[in-house]
Amino acid sequence: MRSKKLGVSTPQTYAVVLDTGEPVLDKLREFASAEGISTSHFTAIGAFESVTLGYFDLDQTRYLEIPVEEQVEVLTMAGDMVGSGEDRRIHAHVVVGRRDGTTRGGHLLHAVTRPTLEVMVTESPAELARRYDETTGLTLIDPG
Amino acid sequence: MRSKKLGVSTPQTYAVVLDTGEPVLDKLREFASAEGISTSHFTAIGAFESVTLGYFDLDQTRYLEIPVEEQVEVLTMAGDMVGSGEDRRIHAHVVVGRRDGTTRGGHLLHAVTRPTLEVMVTESPAELARRYDETTGLTLIDPG
Amino acid sequence: MRSKKLGVSTPQTYAVVLDTGEPVLDKLREFASAEGISTSHFTAIGAFESVTLGYFDLDQTRYLEIPVEEQVEVLTMAGDMVGSGEDRRIHAHVVVGRRDGTTRGGHLLHAVTRPTLEVMVTESPAELARRYDETTGLTLIDPG
Repeated sequence: MRSKKLGVSTPQTYAVVLDTGEPVLDKLREFASAEGISTSHFTAIGAFESVTLGYFDLDQTRYLEIPVEEQVEVLTMAGDMVGSGEDRRIHAHVVVGRRDGTTRGGHLLHAVTRPTLEVMVTESPAELARRYDETTGLTLIDPG
Repeated sequence: MRSKKLGVSTPQTYAVVLDTGEPVLDKLREFASAEGISTSHFTAIGAFESVTLGYFDLDQTRYLEIPVEEQVEVLTMAGDMVGSGEDRRIHAHVVVGRRDGTTRGGHLLHAVTRPTLEVMVTESPAELARRYDETTGLTLIDPG
Repeated sequence: MRSKKLGVSTPQTYAVVLDTGEPVLDKLREFASAEGISTSHFTAIGAFESVTLGYFDLDQTRYLEIPVEEQVEVLTMAGDMVGSGEDRRIHAHVVVGRRDGTTRGGHLLHAVTRPTLEVMVTESPAELARRYDETTGLTLIDPG
């Protein structure tokens, strides 16, 4: 365990609303880029017309894709954005609800909004870095 | 996608604790009204003695009801309150956990607390508005 | 329902990152103790190599254990830490995602990190107390 004091938080906060047809990760990247935000975390609720979830296979060191090809409620979406420009990484996990109330969830690989996604973004008072992890091939937050 | 800078956040935050038998949405509305809060977002954990979940059917433009008539853990509850008085809208999504660890989730239509629900409410530095969406009949957050 | 105004929030916020093999509750307790934090709340995403979930049985007034003995994505983890020293209580609920995208969730009894858990901790501007609840035998947050 390592931790980093991010500082007294008087952060900029943003409400970001995505509309029907908008791809979630692309739009969040566009938002962060336009506002010049390098480190932030977010939560969201809303709905997707479809989503591809990921499960990280530690042996294969890659995400297995779990497509959910149906309209679902976004019950939770939580994650962070770290870095800037081409190096900006968005890490988000979601739980979605189906027509019968059962749920699916995983790492967010791809999702399209319908009809709305309400994202609350909180900028971090300090920047965080990510480092490449050789064991998994993932880039993990490094408070170091 | 539209976004709104909510401003530097030195928000009032509140811990709201609901007790056995208390209806969640009514009590949150009562709390927001008493404190004079117009825009806020919240997260919560706790447990319900029962809950009615909703899944929004885009063709019928209405929520299908999914009753869960059993004691469940509230694994996540996330949402926002926008507006004041009769126009106050609470939008919340929940994931609940059953006795065997399986989950159900959806839009929160109705829930009764047992034995406790711990809600962390953060007031927004700026007000948000909702607008009526003709396609769905929903009132969606409009950062416009 | 009772509530407590926690005060204008210019809180210390922390990014706490747990690594492979680290037990979640022990490490969070260690972190809070080292930083001298008495009341805080947190959210997290990441992954566990295994987790034991709990479902509170109101008749038996104890948590039933639901072991999940497999690598899972941590889709949401939300909770709070209240008190200090031996009296510090961590209350966390989690939803985890399995290889096929199905989910399990409950009260967090025990979990081991793999490969990472990213926890965002927000210190509360005011302290909260917990009180012993005779009906359930639980210690619940008491906004007094």
